[in-house]
This record gives sequence, C-alpha cells and structure tokens, in this order.
Amino acid sequence: MIKMIALYKQPKDKKKFDEHYFGTHAPITAKIPGLRKMEVTKITGTPMGGESEYYLLCEMYYDSYEAFKAAMKTSEAKASGKDLMSFAGDIVTLMVGEEVKND
Amino acid sequence: MIKMIALYKQPKDKKKFDEHYFGTHAPITAKIPGLRKMEVTKITGTPMGGESEYYLLCEMYYDSYEAFKAAMKTSEAKASGKDLMSFAGDIVTLMVGEEVKND
Repeated sequence: MIKMIALYKQPKDKKKFDEHYFGTHAPITAKIPGLRKMEVTKITGTPMGGESEYYLLCEMYYDSYEAFKAAMKTSEAKASGKDLMSFAGDIVTLMVGEEVKND
Repeated sequence: MIKMIALYKQPKDKKKFDEHYFGTHAPITAKIPGLRKMEVTKITGTPMGGESEYYLLCEMYYDSYEAFKAAMKTSEAKASGKDLMSFAGDIVTLMVGEEVKND
C-alpha cells in the first residue's frame, strides 16, 4: 500500500494540540475519499529512555499512487491540509511512502 | 500496541544501504524475541512532489511496554542495535510509540 506520513515535533502546548488533533483534525482527515486506514502513534520517548524530538506519527493508507493522487485533489483533502497548516504547519513533516515489507 | 520506530534520512549510497538493510539488518532484527510485526516503508517523496529528507521508515511492533523492554535486553536486540550503528548510526532516529488510533 501507499501511505502518507505526517510526523509532528513536540508542540508547545500538548493539551491544545491533542484537543485540536483528535477533536478536529483527525475527523476532517478521516473523511478523505479513498483513505483505507489511519494509524496514529503517540511517541512516548526513545529506546534509551529519553524524550523524543517527535510527538506524534500519523499514517494514512491508500490502495495505490493513483488513488492517493486522486484523493489529494478532493475538497476533503484540501480541508484537511488547510486545517493542518492552521495548527501545526511549523511542526509537521509530510512524507509519501510505499510499504515494502509487512510481516 | 507498542512500536519502536526507526526513521532513516537519505543515505549517501542508496544501493549499498538497501543491500545491507534488506540483506543483513532486517533479518537480524526479525529474530528479536517478542517482535510481532515489522513494517518497512520506503519514502518516495513529499505530497508536493519533491524529494523527502527521509528515506525509510521501519516500525517494529510489540504487545506491551513490558514485552518491548524485555525484548531490548536480549542478545538478538543487542546484535540488531550494534549492526544498526555500524551502517546507519549517523542517519537514523529512533522513537518508541504507542498506537492510539487504528481505523
């Protein structure tokens, strides 16, 4: 599968971030047509026990590049992107990737 | 579930990286006791079409923090960690996270 990955650095205000992320952003994003699965991971630290530079990882799965590209053109995706920039534009890194191994 | 995340920046030599990663590192890592699933994603770019700073994302799933901590103490995990440092110590970021949403 193809996935879009959003990796967020530690926000200044975690409570505010969580409220917006889970209360507004995730529901808007979940409406994007063609989105097959959305996996959200809260980063809790590093293997050595310290705090990570990162706070949250979201993976959004699509069937193919074509499906992903088509999805990005929808008004739902544009609304999600606009919302993202409004609350996390300065701390988010976006990537597109292809699952090569899953076992 | 709990996951360890390894995020790799673009390596200088992608062919050499891939050979070591898929031929040596992934098989060593797959032997870690308690590891439930290993998902590898090749980063192909950004949503805007540009090249990403990142090259590969690997997610290694465990049943719980306790299982993860116990796994990290095994000789297999130590061998994986040692191998990781030998070929990608300068380009990898390690995180531990907890799946909070999967739908």
